Amino acid sequence: MHTVLSSANRTVTIGHDQPFCVIGERINPTGRKLFQEQLRRGDLSRVEIDVAEQVAGGAMVLDVNMGTPLADEAALMVSAVKLVQSLTDLPLCLDSSIIEVLDAGLAAYRGKALVNSVTAEDERLAAILPLVKRHGAAVIGLPNDEREIPDDPRRRVELAGKIIDVATGRYGIPIEDIVIDPLAMPIGADTTVGIKTLETIALLREKFGVNMTFGASNVSFGMPDRHTLGAAFLPMAIAAGLTSAIMDARSPQIVRSVKAADVLLDHDPWGSAWIAAHRAQQAQAQQAGT
Amino acid sequence: MHTVLSSANRTVTIGHDQPFCVIGERINPTGRKLFQEQLRRGDLSRVEIDVAEQVAGGAMVLDVNMGTPLADEAALMVSAVKLVQSLTDLPLCLDSSIIEVLDAGLAAYRGKALVNSVTAEDERLAAILPLVKRHGAAVIGLPNDEREIPDDPRRRVELAGKIIDVATGRYGIPIEDIVIDPLAMPIGADTTVGIKTLETIALLREKFGVNMTFGASNVSFGMPDRHTLGAAFLPMAIAAGLTSAIMDARSPQIVRSVKAADVLLDHDPWGSAWIAAHRAQQAQAQQAGT
Repeated sequence: MHTVLSSANRTVTIGHDQPFCVIGERINPTGRKLFQEQLRRGDLSRVEIDVAEQVAGGAMVLDVNMGTPLADEAALMVSAVKLVQSLTDLPLCLDSSIIEVLDAGLAAYRGKALVNSVTAEDERLAAILPLVKRHGAAVIGLPNDEREIPDDPRRRVELAGKIIDVATGRYGIPIEDIVIDPLAMPIGADTTVGIKTLETIALLREKFGVNMTFGASNVSFGMPDRHTLGAAFLPMAIAAGLTSAIMDARSPQIVRSVKAADVLLDHDPWGSAWIAAHRAQQAQAQQAGT
Repeated sequence: MHTVLSSANRTVTIGHDQPFCVIGERINPTGRKLFQEQLRRGDLSRVEIDVAEQVAGGAMVLDVNMGTPLADEAALMVSAVKLVQSLTDLPLCLDSSIIEVLDAGLAAYRGKALVNSVTAEDERLAAILPLVKRHGAAVIGLPNDEREIPDDPRRRVELAGKIIDVATGRYGIPIEDIVIDPLAMPIGADTTVGIKTLETIALLREKFGVNMTFGASNVSFGMPDRHTLGAAFLPMAIAAGLTSAIMDARSPQIVRSVKAADVLLDHDPWGSAWIAAHRAQQAQAQQAGT
């Protein structure tokens, strides 16, 4: 199953037979005080740096979140979408919990975006899916509802099924435009959550064959040596069926681990991308040395 | 299922509910010309360095291979076993293709060793399993026979079944003392071999529930950035059911990746070993800085 995203000039395909899709998480003011202050003043210069660093790091899609208290998030989203699309032709993932922000962002976006996200709550489904349909976008579905973020992988799969049923049945959104988030929780709070995420991925793959994405940085939250945890969890999740992640594209350790997973799972024929990246790195190092 | 190895004073348990067992691969003259020359002269001083480096790196068992052309391998194995057991109380894995070397090594060994290895060939089974039984050792079984190293995971499982049947049925070796090697081949020669190894691991776990080990360095042979490939493949294999590997215990990147896998698969309760290792590292770095 292929989820095809696009900008004005570029297409990215997410699928179980494709190289893993690295979605850069960085254009997000959560926990970044200075960035929030800049955004409140309408200063988007930080976004330019975040774009450049993530493109250099190997991002294939960029998540854009403008969630800033006391700011006009819809206006910021429109400005950010226009700015980022002027800087790169990578497709974007528009990330907000506010319907109007998603709507404004989708209207400003050129191409087919990924919407982050809808839950299995009736109200959210009814508000967000018509937007997704109208703009011809794809959407990330989170398997939680009004009552719970389920612990049990089978319950997550049920809620994912609800999202898929409503999106395809009621709104005519093709199943390949639905990307399910199996939910990755912080391992530091509960060391059983990693296994549950992996089980959810395997079940979702078996039952629906859909594409999946999760916030890879969540897993290591609050733990030391986060990059090593991320670099170990991603290959496990990819082997189980994860096809993309919203992740730190600036971390060579984490990005290289998913590129290694591509080689090891035969998504990098003859390892040619792996070898080419190594040669480019060597050439760069040599140039830096002269 | 628990495979319990021991030295005179220490026990190591391999199992699906245990931290991953790191078997240090380094005491092996293959491809080490200087080491081979030293061994031919009866000089085992290099072994002392290899032991120290691997213990420092986090090895839990040490593989000992004395395969040196034009040398008395049995005598070297006896000397190496005695030397290594005087230097560390880690259990050992005695590694040779020659029956007499294994016999001599097992006779000299104090504790319960792991024998590396037996294949599914009738002649090898008949020669090695009586030794394993007599010395009360555990044994690594390689699922290849006279005709082939099978490509097909199901055929590997059949040959593993043959080894298990003969060892348990004819020689009374308990199944928990049989550690199956799912066979990890170089990805550089054929990018489909990684998937086949992972499939074999999953099938072996489902069918027999046995412990498993493989030579982790094989996978990345001939490829650039080998440690990153190893650090990505091990977590995948561990999630599928691998419980130990003969690996480069001197590489912090690879060892940390299996420790991360322990945390992520709930084999490191509360992440306490992970956090303790991080603190020890910090303390060491601080000391180095002062």
